[in-house]
Amino acid sequence: MSQFENVTVTKKANVYFEGKVTSRKVTFADGSVKTLGIMLPGEYEFGTEAAELMEILAGDLEILLPEATDWQKVVGGESFNVPANASFKLKIYQVTDYCCSYLAD
Amino acid sequence: MSQFENVTVTKKANVYFEGKVTSRKVTFADGSVKTLGIMLPGEYEFGTEAAELMEILAGDLEILLPEATDWQKVVGGESFNVPANASFKLKIYQVTDYCCSYLAD
Repeated sequence: MSQFENVTVTKKANVYFEGKVTSRKVTFADGSVKTLGIMLPGEYEFGTEAAELMEILAGDLEILLPEATDWQKVVGGESFNVPANASFKLKIYQVTDYCCSYLAD
Repeated sequence: MSQFENVTVTKKANVYFEGKVTSRKVTFADGSVKTLGIMLPGEYEFGTEAAELMEILAGDLEILLPEATDWQKVVGGESFNVPANASFKLKIYQVTDYCCSYLAD
């Protein structure tokens, strides 16, 4: 699925880390939400509220998932899950284009 | 209008200048197109095909429009037009969130 149809897009971007991570919210007819975002090279830590599915559309990064001790390589075309109410770390090596789905309980 | 409803969003981002400028395409029911984008601090030059209306949602920048000799300050809440088949320059001083409308002939 290369595009999302019949959705609502919030114009204003979400801006984190001085703009090195940005995203925009996409709301679907069923009320579910995803964000489409960009991460530039750097190291970041994020906290979740809902559980997340992070789909990497393009990029080269490593992730440290909650309670994990080893960093895990992720590239474009791959995805990973993050549990709710947790924090995870990312090391971005190349511009990373992502789609984050917020999962219902 | 803080959001666009009943639109199609292309998942994959457009990436320019090593990710310092990125945007995503939003297509409306009438076939018209806008992009929502982010520009990080830096200096850029872009060429247009269609004429563009650039709405600055947030940011602090200067623009040099085609055939202009003076740079013009633009901040969040302002907008400017660029003619078709032209090039223009931007100096971005603070992270800039924008909406670009591509205007029909």
